[in-house]
Amino acid sequence: MAFTIHGLAVSQGIAIGHVHLISHALLEVNHYHVAQKYIAEELYRLDDAVATVHGELIGLKAAASGGQAHSELGAFVDLQIMLLADPMLVDAARELVSTRRCNAEWALVQQMEHLVEQFQQIEDPYLRERQADVVQVVERLVKVLLGHPGRLPAKRRDGLGTIVVAHDLSPADTIGFRDHNIAGFVTDVGGPTSHTAIVARSLGIPAVVGLHHIRDVLEDDELVIVDGTRGVVIVAPDEHIVEEYRLRRTELELERSKLKRLKDTPANTLCGEHIDLLVNIEGPKDIAAARAVNADGVGLYRTEFLFIGRDSLPDEDEQYEAYRSVLKTMGKRPVTIRTFDVGADKALNGNTRVEPNPALGLRAVRYSLAEPKMFRTQLRALLRASAHGKLRIMVPMLAHAHEIDQTLALVDRAKAELRAERVRFDESVEIGGMVEVPAAALALGMFVRRLSFLSIGTNDLIQYTLAIDRANEAVVHLYDPLHPAVLKLIGATIQTGARYGLPVSVCGEMAGDPAYTLLLLGMGLRHFSMHPANVLEIKQQVLRADVGELAPKVQRILRMDEPMRVREAVERLAG
Amino acid sequence: MAFTIHGLAVSQGIAIGHVHLISHALLEVNHYHVAQKYIAEELYRLDDAVATVHGELIGLKAAASGGQAHSELGAFVDLQIMLLADPMLVDAARELVSTRRCNAEWALVQQMEHLVEQFQQIEDPYLRERQADVVQVVERLVKVLLGHPGRLPAKRRDGLGTIVVAHDLSPADTIGFRDHNIAGFVTDVGGPTSHTAIVARSLGIPAVVGLHHIRDVLEDDELVIVDGTRGVVIVAPDEHIVEEYRLRRTELELERSKLKRLKDTPANTLCGEHIDLLVNIEGPKDIAAARAVNADGVGLYRTEFLFIGRDSLPDEDEQYEAYRSVLKTMGKRPVTIRTFDVGADKALNGNTRVEPNPALGLRAVRYSLAEPKMFRTQLRALLRASAHGKLRIMVPMLAHAHEIDQTLALVDRAKAELRAERVRFDESVEIGGMVEVPAAALALGMFVRRLSFLSIGTNDLIQYTLAIDRANEAVVHLYDPLHPAVLKLIGATIQTGARYGLPVSVCGEMAGDPAYTLLLLGMGLRHFSMHPANVLEIKQQVLRADVGELAPKVQRILRMDEPMRVREAVERLAG
Repeated sequence: MAFTIHGLAVSQGIAIGHVHLISHALLEVNHYHVAQKYIAEELYRLDDAVATVHGELIGLKAAASGGQAHSELGAFVDLQIMLLADPMLVDAARELVSTRRCNAEWALVQQMEHLVEQFQQIEDPYLRERQADVVQVVERLVKVLLGHPGRLPAKRRDGLGTIVVAHDLSPADTIGFRDHNIAGFVTDVGGPTSHTAIVARSLGIPAVVGLHHIRDVLEDDELVIVDGTRGVVIVAPDEHIVEEYRLRRTELELERSKLKRLKDTPANTLCGEHIDLLVNIEGPKDIAAARAVNADGVGLYRTEFLFIGRDSLPDEDEQYEAYRSVLKTMGKRPVTIRTFDVGADKALNGNTRVEPNPALGLRAVRYSLAEPKMFRTQLRALLRASAHGKLRIMVPMLAHAHEIDQTLALVDRAKAELRAERVRFDESVEIGGMVEVPAAALALGMFVRRLSFLSIGTNDLIQYTLAIDRANEAVVHLYDPLHPAVLKLIGATIQTGARYGLPVSVCGEMAGDPAYTLLLLGMGLRHFSMHPANVLEIKQQVLRADVGELAPKVQRILRMDEPMRVREAVERLAG
Repeated sequence: MAFTIHGLAVSQGIAIGHVHLISHALLEVNHYHVAQKYIAEELYRLDDAVATVHGELIGLKAAASGGQAHSELGAFVDLQIMLLADPMLVDAARELVSTRRCNAEWALVQQMEHLVEQFQQIEDPYLRERQADVVQVVERLVKVLLGHPGRLPAKRRDGLGTIVVAHDLSPADTIGFRDHNIAGFVTDVGGPTSHTAIVARSLGIPAVVGLHHIRDVLEDDELVIVDGTRGVVIVAPDEHIVEEYRLRRTELELERSKLKRLKDTPANTLCGEHIDLLVNIEGPKDIAAARAVNADGVGLYRTEFLFIGRDSLPDEDEQYEAYRSVLKTMGKRPVTIRTFDVGADKALNGNTRVEPNPALGLRAVRYSLAEPKMFRTQLRALLRASAHGKLRIMVPMLAHAHEIDQTLALVDRAKAELRAERVRFDESVEIGGMVEVPAAALALGMFVRRLSFLSIGTNDLIQYTLAIDRANEAVVHLYDPLHPAVLKLIGATIQTGARYGLPVSVCGEMAGDPAYTLLLLGMGLRHFSMHPANVLEIKQQVLRADVGELAPKVQRILRMDEPMRVREAVERLAG
């Protein structure tokens, strides 16, 4: 009989296929002590495995070359190759073999656990997820040591694809599966920023993650349906269900091919109002994707990539280059660059601190103001870059008037310096702020009087409003963009912005999710910023929208405070 | 020349006196390896120090007996005696001496650092601060090992007291200083829940903490003024300043003796309206203090003490006793018992989890709902206790309608069980909720339709609204009860409660701080719950208040969003 298992929807679409279970080598590791005389041999085993995995990864990287999605995969594999060479991993494991006589597998797993613990202290959800790379590299090593290199799925002839079911998937795994007709991914662990999620989205393969012990429930070759839109896995569906999902899948595919044709259509509503569709990017590398969808500009340029894999921040000139190149490419279209959104846990000056609640700690503008030298360098680099396009500077995590005042004073000082040095910059560069702390949305008057534009970071705003860390699996089910409190704050921010003539955008995930487009339009939102992959789908929603009709309906929703009614009313907007 | 250093005000009042510097033994520890043949001797040194400190602590405990304040001190000393016997501390240090040949001081400090790191993972600020006990016990051991047992201040003959200046103070230190005419405490570290703070408040001695390297600035015997109300230390004041502070101190003392006479005066405003002054307690031990100030009831009975120092939760009968004894003592006065406000980090079932952001994690009602067996036991014990007084059950950290619905369903089920077992309970026991997550204050409609009363936990509400962990020194300066956003949420909650006929109390620290009494009365608050020590001072504010005059002024404040103007307007309320 058919039954349904609920997980986290991380990559849209429907897949129908047969289960291919991937073993979880890390669970099969034995612990034993190596006799003193065999230690040299055990070290040789370890080194040999490292060499084998190194070869595997180099091979996979070559296989990954070509194509937008695959270049992203290639970057992940690079990261794992780097990890394999990191003394913190292999050298430390060798040490455990030599001094404590652990077998190689055990030594690797011990060191992995130690490193994972350190990663868990990191507050940034993206960097924190990189602990998965450590686990995946070690898993690959252990598989080689145990002698089962990972069975690849056979190509099926019944027209159905293969659903890969694993504890977790590494990007390397994913590349290995290429040309094996993979239709969907299903994993025990992972969240929206896990490798599996990112890779699945970039390959356009439906995926459901966070299913806990799904590998114990499914059997090899069993028929399942993966609904990556609703986040469910349907086990042993009967012919009726399969037929229904086939139909739905065909519809989805049709939709997708229609979307591609929208690239050059202006994003105007039915009533003829233009809606700005902007993109979120993480550095110059993403600008090609932004141009591919003909975005109206960059609504959020995250500058944290400047911190990754370094011991010191790039100097003013290097930062200037990173900002200028994007501004230049975008020409007259606005580029909104967010100042550093890092926390004390990512400090580069050697004073890293472990905070018990980093999300409520010294981060974003708080950290920038505590490190004025670092902040000054970034502001100077930004101002210099402003000469080459239409720059807007955006400050994250503001909650207090004095934080804005201090930031504006630092900008003024940097401007004065540049004038004295006769360096060119845009005198009228706009300074705006993120609305992501509840206090900001609730006391917006002090924001609108000081800033030129606002951008709502819905991800963090929801986190703080509901007191939920959505990277924490134990409470992620309580994360709810449609909570009446959340909608009130977003609605009020958009309305206050309009009243004071300040442009307001949304740059959190809600902006890129078609389920919320009509709602946000009805609230009065005219600037949406999102991952480039979502732009065309959101444009499609915009083209169908009648803002005049939506506005009064949404005003009624904003007055509701019973969650079920809110949800129903939002769903009715589309109908 | 006089100068002023700013710290954290943790115990009110003014002290004028001469500096007595306490050495910080932990900074004087040398690291060396003990020769193999001396290891037995080093272990003997360590054991000897443990025995000496054990003797000291037992002696101090005896000295601490008698008096309300001193019984609190005695409990702290007990905790340290327990720690001294804990194998995690001394046995682990012995191990480091034996296997790694560390000297005893070094071994102790290493193990201390290891334990402190573990404590820092704990989310609850009270339990987290208990890492100070580990440090203090080790400091005491190291002092004995180094051979300087801590100089006691000489009694002065100039009529001025002694200002103890230390890195941190242990309760044991404090007891040792008894009869030495201590006028004030000044420390490098600590926060509002540190030992120094708690002990200073219970002894009524002014204290300023969190002054960082104050010991490097002050010299022995130097004249200083400690202003424990404003949180400043004035160094080398001239005669004019001393005279001014003497006057202020006399005024404060007069105030205090007037306060004591208010015990039996009804807390009625000038317009004759009665204001409920309730107390926050942490278990049956605090009920005497509640009766001493003639409190109108218990507004917050924290049940987390049931978790402290145990491997398993007390069973239903033991919990019932802990609840019943307070209900019985309070008679007809209401006793509001809060269900467990613990997090996954404090789980007793062995599944403790380290969460990257415990304050945004699985805690309070979320944790109770995830551990329904534990929750059911507590609800049954509460219901059984309801037969013996006027119980109100209060649920912490609610944010979603379904959390309330689930909790009410569990209460109904527990009631049905008890009826079936023919166990007596109060059928009409009221269930209320804490408003401490911004979402709750913003979507209060779904609360008032389901619950019988509300209590605003201002501490957490401020934390989440401003995205600040106030236990984190790096951001505590951003914690601001007068932030316009915070006032809006509190004001709206009180007004909505009044509109729907639901009693609303405030049980966070704002309720016990006289600086906010008029503001809260003007918002419409009629139920204040606070530490017993604050009741009379708040009553004094109530007696002077004209609510009819305050209300329109406060309504104007709630419409302001410029922080400076809000602050000024609140100060003007008192004038």
